[in-house]
Amino acid sequence: MRAVVIDEGRPVIVERPAPRVEGEASIRVTLAGICGTDLEIARGYLDFRGILGHEFVGIVESAPEPGWIGRRVVGEINVGCGQCERCASGWQRHCPRRSVVGIVGRDGAFAEMLSLPLTNLHAVPDGVSDDAAVFTEPLAAAYEMLEQVPVRSGERAVVLGDGRLGQLCAVVLARAGCSVVVEGRHADKMARLERFGVSTAPAGAPFSRAFDRVVEATGSPLALERALELVRARGTIILKSTYHGATEVELAGLVIDEVTIVGSRCGPFEPAIEHLVSDSTIVDDMISARFPLERAREAFARACDSESLKVVFTP
Amino acid sequence: MRAVVIDEGRPVIVERPAPRVEGEASIRVTLAGICGTDLEIARGYLDFRGILGHEFVGIVESAPEPGWIGRRVVGEINVGCGQCERCASGWQRHCPRRSVVGIVGRDGAFAEMLSLPLTNLHAVPDGVSDDAAVFTEPLAAAYEMLEQVPVRSGERAVVLGDGRLGQLCAVVLARAGCSVVVEGRHADKMARLERFGVSTAPAGAPFSRAFDRVVEATGSPLALERALELVRARGTIILKSTYHGATEVELAGLVIDEVTIVGSRCGPFEPAIEHLVSDSTIVDDMISARFPLERAREAFARACDSESLKVVFTP
Repeated sequence: MRAVVIDEGRPVIVERPAPRVEGEASIRVTLAGICGTDLEIARGYLDFRGILGHEFVGIVESAPEPGWIGRRVVGEINVGCGQCERCASGWQRHCPRRSVVGIVGRDGAFAEMLSLPLTNLHAVPDGVSDDAAVFTEPLAAAYEMLEQVPVRSGERAVVLGDGRLGQLCAVVLARAGCSVVVEGRHADKMARLERFGVSTAPAGAPFSRAFDRVVEATGSPLALERALELVRARGTIILKSTYHGATEVELAGLVIDEVTIVGSRCGPFEPAIEHLVSDSTIVDDMISARFPLERAREAFARACDSESLKVVFTP
Repeated sequence: MRAVVIDEGRPVIVERPAPRVEGEASIRVTLAGICGTDLEIARGYLDFRGILGHEFVGIVESAPEPGWIGRRVVGEINVGCGQCERCASGWQRHCPRRSVVGIVGRDGAFAEMLSLPLTNLHAVPDGVSDDAAVFTEPLAAAYEMLEQVPVRSGERAVVLGDGRLGQLCAVVLARAGCSVVVEGRHADKMARLERFGVSTAPAGAPFSRAFDRVVEATGSPLALERALELVRARGTIILKSTYHGATEVELAGLVIDEVTIVGSRCGPFEPAIEHLVSDSTIVDDMISARFPLERAREAFARACDSESLKVVFTP
């Protein structure tokens, strides 16, 4: 089968045997989205050598339980060892020996087929299109914020970054009852957000230090400094982007104002799927471009373009 | 009256008028403790020019309500403006226009007398000695951890730093049901801790990344790196020290492991006083040396000595 890997910092298409793993399902990929983490991996992050891609929707072609065959599915990306104390307590997502689809020790979805354990699969309800379902994984990552830091209705939230992840985070917070503003740099993306009851402001707007929560979704470590400027005393900064490298933090201010910083990664699929069933408008026009695997280089270039929201492969 | 201020980085004794503030109590200081923050202020932190000192026990000499006169008291150190939304919701501690005893815009306790609003005062119960009561403020700071991050019994905690604050944090966590180990560098201080059911280990011990919570109480920004080595995925790092300067944080690890960092400062006096009433053994032999105000320079030097636990003034 055809698949996309990184070779000397660039995506290239290669021929690989279709995966067939004992005890797992084989899934034919219908759509696969390019995420900021994929772009970071292309730049050398995590030194991953396998097939890229972890946002997908596809059809099960073979499975140890025949009921799954032919079903349209999305998949959670962390596969725990199944043996350790973490896995036993339901935290496969944080198993220290886990593999992660297209990120750590497991081939991903930029290919014709991928393999996953059944426990990772979620059937896609009929009312949810493929174009919407491919956003389940990033939308679940946005819902992770609510699992970690419960929202009180009426809280003031600011999301730094108007990209795909920032948009999903903003809409999830607005739906949970927050008053949300997004700081961004792209007129088109900001205009889009206002349809969902989210306010927008140019980056660096003269806000007072009054936000209950600040979500960092810019993809740049420098945004932490901005987050510290905006969060109120005893407020919470949620870091959603993963990126290379360190950043400087003034710890005294953090201690004096008793600010909390929460790292936030993959999230629960159930509320994300429910969200898409009840209202998929947030993702309905989010796909900026579609490419076959053969045009991987072009697809990655387009995903790097700051005007793009989501670029997908149609393997 | 005699009082201690900082002049060109050194504590000096000066003559000042005794404070008489309309609507506040005047308190004759019996004992006042030197804290890490005082040493930082002497090094230029916060650029504070007034009388130093915020840990004290004393006797009320005059007050707008006569019932307070003659009472032995300790005092909360943050004085809100009383006008803003923060003060209205009971968060004087985080009023943006607050003064802070001996730290920001308000004279402190390294003097014969100090002035505080009645709302900041707590009467010291008879069973609590002056030597114990002078620890109410730092013990309250340790209790702040439990207000911010509720403890589940049996949690594994590590406290970085075997100094005064580290010791108080360790005992508070142990009393709340945590299994606690302190990483330190001083044999005497560590031996003392073992009396309280707290384990100890040399700094940099080969622990696995398995602690539910890590308390940073070393006074060094470098300890954040160590905290990140010890905290488990989804665990919490509590920063208790305040200090000058920035430190580098690898944000990717924080996001991937969904670690939470909580800045933690002043805390509630009630549980600290209850603790001292029921059992003051944690502070009973914590005073390493006592000095009159005239020997301020010597007192500060002794407080900087890493073998000291707590140095107090006897004004």
